[in-house]
Amino acid sequence: MSDTDIQMPEAELRENEAIHDDEDRLSRAFVQSVLDRVEEGDAAGARALVEPLHPADVADLFELSPADMRPALVQALADLVDADVFAEMNDWVREGLVDALEPHEVAEIASELDTDDAVALIEDMDEEDQRAVLHAMEPEDRAAIEEALSYEEETAGRLMQRDLVAVPEHWLVRDVIDFVRSSDDLPTDFWEIFVVDIAHKPIGTLKGSWVLRARDDEPIVEVMQREQTLIPVDMDQEEVALRFQKYALISAAVVDRSGRLVGMITVDDILHIVQEEAGEDALLLSGAGDGDINEPLSSTIKTRMWWLFINLWTAILAAGVVAIFQESIARLVTLAVLMGIVNGMGGNAATQTMAVTVRALATNQLTGSNSWRMVVREWWIASANGLGLGLLMAIGCQLIYHDFWLSVVLFLAMVINSINAGLSGVLIPLGLARLKIDPAITSTVFVTTMTDTMGFFAFLGLATLFHLS
Amino acid sequence: MSDTDIQMPEAELRENEAIHDDEDRLSRAFVQSVLDRVEEGDAAGARALVEPLHPADVADLFELSPADMRPALVQALADLVDADVFAEMNDWVREGLVDALEPHEVAEIASELDTDDAVALIEDMDEEDQRAVLHAMEPEDRAAIEEALSYEEETAGRLMQRDLVAVPEHWLVRDVIDFVRSSDDLPTDFWEIFVVDIAHKPIGTLKGSWVLRARDDEPIVEVMQREQTLIPVDMDQEEVALRFQKYALISAAVVDRSGRLVGMITVDDILHIVQEEAGEDALLLSGAGDGDINEPLSSTIKTRMWWLFINLWTAILAAGVVAIFQESIARLVTLAVLMGIVNGMGGNAATQTMAVTVRALATNQLTGSNSWRMVVREWWIASANGLGLGLLMAIGCQLIYHDFWLSVVLFLAMVINSINAGLSGVLIPLGLARLKIDPAITSTVFVTTMTDTMGFFAFLGLATLFHLS
Repeated sequence: MSDTDIQMPEAELRENEAIHDDEDRLSRAFVQSVLDRVEEGDAAGARALVEPLHPADVADLFELSPADMRPALVQALADLVDADVFAEMNDWVREGLVDALEPHEVAEIASELDTDDAVALIEDMDEEDQRAVLHAMEPEDRAAIEEALSYEEETAGRLMQRDLVAVPEHWLVRDVIDFVRSSDDLPTDFWEIFVVDIAHKPIGTLKGSWVLRARDDEPIVEVMQREQTLIPVDMDQEEVALRFQKYALISAAVVDRSGRLVGMITVDDILHIVQEEAGEDALLLSGAGDGDINEPLSSTIKTRMWWLFINLWTAILAAGVVAIFQESIARLVTLAVLMGIVNGMGGNAATQTMAVTVRALATNQLTGSNSWRMVVREWWIASANGLGLGLLMAIGCQLIYHDFWLSVVLFLAMVINSINAGLSGVLIPLGLARLKIDPAITSTVFVTTMTDTMGFFAFLGLATLFHLS
Repeated sequence: MSDTDIQMPEAELRENEAIHDDEDRLSRAFVQSVLDRVEEGDAAGARALVEPLHPADVADLFELSPADMRPALVQALADLVDADVFAEMNDWVREGLVDALEPHEVAEIASELDTDDAVALIEDMDEEDQRAVLHAMEPEDRAAIEEALSYEEETAGRLMQRDLVAVPEHWLVRDVIDFVRSSDDLPTDFWEIFVVDIAHKPIGTLKGSWVLRARDDEPIVEVMQREQTLIPVDMDQEEVALRFQKYALISAAVVDRSGRLVGMITVDDILHIVQEEAGEDALLLSGAGDGDINEPLSSTIKTRMWWLFINLWTAILAAGVVAIFQESIARLVTLAVLMGIVNGMGGNAATQTMAVTVRALATNQLTGSNSWRMVVREWWIASANGLGLGLLMAIGCQLIYHDFWLSVVLFLAMVINSINAGLSGVLIPLGLARLKIDPAITSTVFVTTMTDTMGFFAFLGLATLFHLS
């Protein structure tokens, strides 16, 4: 699929060394070639290889290189590592590189970026360095960044860019065209032009294609689209992304509390957010934090160990339940052999339900109107699975152990724990969401506790009740 | 945040009945109001409520209504349920409604849609119905849909729309503007114009804003952007989405095998795909299939039960390991109490590593260049977690049971199983990906088998070896 690549400068590479593999990722051979040249001190050779790359690929090159090679790499590539490359770079990798730069160098890069990318560049620096960088910037750029930093992280205010095209409502199409042709101060690319009233409140949107098709002497209020989705500056970015999806937006105006136009968000930034927010469910449910493979090791260990520690208490609680029934187990050790099956099935069933519920909540598919229906639905699924698989296991148990009541107990415990798992898997995330607690982060530990303790309790409890041992 | 909504027609609603809740979802009260009117046979009342809604909200209304109310709802709303509404609707909900329509009605709706949406509408119908619908369509629309259907599902060919603006390379800017003004046959909105050579191969892209700013007498080859990302018609949609993200595209040209322009993909369709593909990891890892809450119950039960059945064998295998050590357990029943702790911790640690690996693979962050580094990284994390938490548990064990060698065995088993979990969690998805098997679907069962069997084996085996009982 080499025809899909933007550039194909194979010249500098030895034979069989394609820049990209068939999934458009930098090939291992290419990355190695660049690193070899850097190690040999052949900066010119490294630059020749990297020069034709798209900024997104240069950013990838840094991510794919070992952390200890990155400073040498940035030195060798020098000005090839420009603002666009920093904008595309993974947060942790960028932070590592930025730390090694002087404040005035960071300021220079930040000045060339859109406000949102500049903010991403410096928001994680410590306060002193941040001040030094801002101090080294032009007053106008500094003001824009300081304003952006005044909004909470992960809100529209952080995301938006201030470079946009806004025109007054009394203009004709001709005025707009004259304006964009004569002004040097506009963004290079824009997809929509915002029409504002005297108070600078957006009243409509001009799509590029509509302007192209309109007659020169038409008033823009006749051409513009009046329906618009305005984004409040303090809206959470996940919410913003859902609006973009729901209304298929290319760009949207951001307004402050009094309704004035203060910025614009474009769909390319939203793509990254959707990717992140939708993908983080799997990571959060597993307790892997943000799961970034470029995060420093110590920070990853801290995040994961903390989660495992919390979950150990679940396991200890479950062990406590087993301890209650020690005597039964001592008399019939088969109970110890089978008890894991009841729990394992419950854990898996709960994980399924929980993943579905968390996803449906995150995509706004599950609301007050259909929550109850979802609970009933999961009840049916859990019952069907419990009865079906419980029967199967009971038959297996009977064939192996020839113990009718043991098989009955196994069947009952599996039905009970399956229903327990299904209901926990749906009710716990729903309840957490209602309490405004992120269900993706907190559900697992509660749900596991329910399935583990209830699983042991049902199986061992019933066994004791039936005097099996 | 009512100011962000596109329309606010509260007139028909009683007090306190906002159409949207604060997350822009249809409020429960609103959905109930509409359903009440439908049940009372007050179609006019229901229509008055729904009329001001955006098509995306009308689609949501159907999803939020109970399945058995949907046919009555579509009948009451009649032409308010137009092509745009069908385009926004959940696949399962749409399929349910389409089944109830006559072929000529489906054909009418399909004719008004972009090719990609029309294909989505009819691709899941059975062959006979599909033929009837296609037969009822205009030859031109039929040809476009039949061509789209000839491409594999989830490829660029299915996603693309054929309505686009393409102009010959020898034109001036003026020609382009005259063309888009005079032609009635163009799409209403377009963001980019494709420039093609005589063989209809795309050679560049005109962004709307660049055309607006150019002089009338400039040749378009001077204005167009030559760098372009061309999408082969058979490229997988996930791959397409990654290109859009990497290169921040708004739209992209789709080309056939000979490089001719055959269609266009726009970013709004990509947003949905990113949302789906990124979100499905959590669902696939949990074995919940596509996890759609609108899927028919029987089909959901089948998917989930199959997964639980496969995983039961994991549990049975683990039970087999316990059975090997029955005698040790019979002599020291504490082993049965503690063995779940070793496994629980291993399972959780493996889930973390697996979620991170699957995510990094899906986003192209993990490639041949850094796989080994990732394995080493996970080894360190697993060792740290195993040593830290193993020590903690060993101390706890010593305090409760005053059995030094039991505590040592617990410690060693936790370290061994933590490292086993970490390495399984990264090596199994990597291996599956190398074999071109989707790691999100298949990893869990292998990884669980490793942590469960090894966990029991390490703990019970060491206990037996140390003659604890």
